[in-house]
Amino acid sequence: MTDVEGTAGWAEAAVREHAGEAERPSREEQVLERIDRARRRKARVKEEHVTMAHGSGGKATQSLIEAIFLEDFRNPLLEPLEDGAVFGVGSSRLAFTTDSYVVSPLFFPGGDIGDLAVNGTVNDLAVCGSRPLYLSAGFILEEGFPVEDLRRVTASMAGAAARAGVQVVTGDTKVVQRGKADGCYVNTAGVGLLDRPIGLSAAAARSGDAVIVSGPIGEHGVTIMLARGELDIEADLVSDTAPLNGLVAALLDACEGLPPEARRDAAPDVRPGVVRCMRDATRGGVATILNEIAHASGVAVVVEEDAIPVRPGVRGACELLGIDPLYVACEGRLVAVVDGAAADTALAALRAHPLGAGAALVGHVKDDPPGLVLLKTGFGGTRIVDLLVGDPLPRIC
Amino acid sequence: MTDVEGTAGWAEAAVREHAGEAERPSREEQVLERIDRARRRKARVKEEHVTMAHGSGGKATQSLIEAIFLEDFRNPLLEPLEDGAVFGVGSSRLAFTTDSYVVSPLFFPGGDIGDLAVNGTVNDLAVCGSRPLYLSAGFILEEGFPVEDLRRVTASMAGAAARAGVQVVTGDTKVVQRGKADGCYVNTAGVGLLDRPIGLSAAAARSGDAVIVSGPIGEHGVTIMLARGELDIEADLVSDTAPLNGLVAALLDACEGLPPEARRDAAPDVRPGVVRCMRDATRGGVATILNEIAHASGVAVVVEEDAIPVRPGVRGACELLGIDPLYVACEGRLVAVVDGAAADTALAALRAHPLGAGAALVGHVKDDPPGLVLLKTGFGGTRIVDLLVGDPLPRIC
Repeated sequence: MTDVEGTAGWAEAAVREHAGEAERPSREEQVLERIDRARRRKARVKEEHVTMAHGSGGKATQSLIEAIFLEDFRNPLLEPLEDGAVFGVGSSRLAFTTDSYVVSPLFFPGGDIGDLAVNGTVNDLAVCGSRPLYLSAGFILEEGFPVEDLRRVTASMAGAAARAGVQVVTGDTKVVQRGKADGCYVNTAGVGLLDRPIGLSAAAARSGDAVIVSGPIGEHGVTIMLARGELDIEADLVSDTAPLNGLVAALLDACEGLPPEARRDAAPDVRPGVVRCMRDATRGGVATILNEIAHASGVAVVVEEDAIPVRPGVRGACELLGIDPLYVACEGRLVAVVDGAAADTALAALRAHPLGAGAALVGHVKDDPPGLVLLKTGFGGTRIVDLLVGDPLPRIC
Repeated sequence: MTDVEGTAGWAEAAVREHAGEAERPSREEQVLERIDRARRRKARVKEEHVTMAHGSGGKATQSLIEAIFLEDFRNPLLEPLEDGAVFGVGSSRLAFTTDSYVVSPLFFPGGDIGDLAVNGTVNDLAVCGSRPLYLSAGFILEEGFPVEDLRRVTASMAGAAARAGVQVVTGDTKVVQRGKADGCYVNTAGVGLLDRPIGLSAAAARSGDAVIVSGPIGEHGVTIMLARGELDIEADLVSDTAPLNGLVAALLDACEGLPPEARRDAAPDVRPGVVRCMRDATRGGVATILNEIAHASGVAVVVEEDAIPVRPGVRGACELLGIDPLYVACEGRLVAVVDGAAADTALAALRAHPLGAGAALVGHVKDDPPGLVLLKTGFGGTRIVDLLVGDPLPRIC
């Protein structure tokens, strides 16, 4: 596995020190304390202008969210910064989420901006533990965009919605002059119903939990990079874009031990479940999600490099690009943290579903060092997997 | 009042024939039948490429919506094409809506893209009869956009949310390269709770109903045009952007005759109310909304030109621009169709609210000619007010 392009500064330096000086624990402790101090520092945006890195899902995005959006909009529903907000209305619990899509190119092997926009919002709702119900669709179109391409996008959205069992119930269209957009941007927001009385949270991981991914990682991001034709690499890859609500339901059915009919409209007596947390690995890839979980739960996530499923085409392209597949976006892969005792049940449930056939146990949660993701490499070393600083793969979703 | 720039083709021709040949009713009937036939025709998008007109809110937007979005996404919740979708979850009824904002310039007298995006979605929820609760915020930022401007936008959104009593609970940020956006685009979606058992619909207007606007029209659109500095006109105008949920609640409280506490969590025994329909007049202005209502209800809407409140600055600018204020966007004005017998009650309720001080009865609903909006001019003539074909005021929201 190549070094991580874009993960720079103190954290990576820390990894090198960490690896090389195991015999001097006081030094290691100093490093971890320095990392901890830096992380507890109030987020701020140092840049005067927005850069591509602010859209990467990595460190810069996190600063922007914490220093500006969270600061201005602060409220108890937003604050957990999960993939969607969960709130009660009457006797129901609902999830609500949004994502804008600016992927380039609009059409790529395995999908397009349309099914990506539907699947992405369906997935954000699903990983909140909700059953996705209704979507909105907001289009920003560039003057001159071919109407035929718009038809392809909406047809693709309609197909994806049908496959996921959701409906697009409201929408909006804006048109901007030539050169003020890039063909077509799509926003989808979504509403889902939490019909299981469980509470999922990135802060719920605890020592002994198992970390599972639902299949090979990085296919979407690499497919987009290759589809741009900027690289002279050929690989037989297609995007993994897919709706994860069926897979998530299968996992929860198996792990939470209640038949679905018993859970429908159950009293909202929310309790922590065997499944602690789920995320779909998009921008920033699996590495970013694991960092969010480690940070929110105050735990260490230890991942085995050799256990991470990566198809040869993705691995090869990543090596040529100098990117770690752990940071590459998927659009149809689930990361789940489950009670260690339920790992086999969870894996079996995922593998029994077509979208989870390649599910793998990739690591475990430990108490120390809190807030960090550690990768045990194939060569027997350990390195810290931090958030990305730059954006090696812009506009992949 | 000047002629309407942009309303072209058969409808405007029809107006001229109509006005000049009252002594030949058979000719008039032919014209109306021709209009009716054209309107019943299946919508289709004739253009091969998206034009600015597709974003105007007028005829081209309508064709795009009906021929592409409605065609592909068709479902009973989307089909009414109201400002938001209304659906039941558990024992509650919810409204769900979305809008993207691409206004240029981002900052203008009286507001900016931030409060516009919050108020717009709050208003769409309010006119569905719901109490706006939660908003999402999706940002598409252009690389190089000043972080300080982003802070101004989010601070403005936070202020608008606080004033409207809603919370931004989930969000998303994307960044695109220079030249692929225009600084900052914002999408807001929103969820509201219908805690009154009334059904509002553009299809609910009936003969004898009164048509009311909550204040002077066209201020937002003209303010934006002037803020672009492309015209050498000076006028002391500010945008009317404002959250209408308080005003709407005041209107419903007065007209529906139930104290608010009696309505909270009332059984969802939905019934048509004294208030038939409400809309906030944005893109396409009051004229577009009245056309939608006339069309959906199969009624005529007859408006008195002299009764329409227009501030002198707006009137003057519109005359110089060759635009009819009826087509100019407001962002804080309500159009309500109410039972004729309740018109005085409705007007009094609106006028008692700071945002409705300038409310006026501007017209009535009649049976014939169905589907048309007629304007009785100050000179005693009558003309048809059709949907706009072009887009004289692009990117005003």
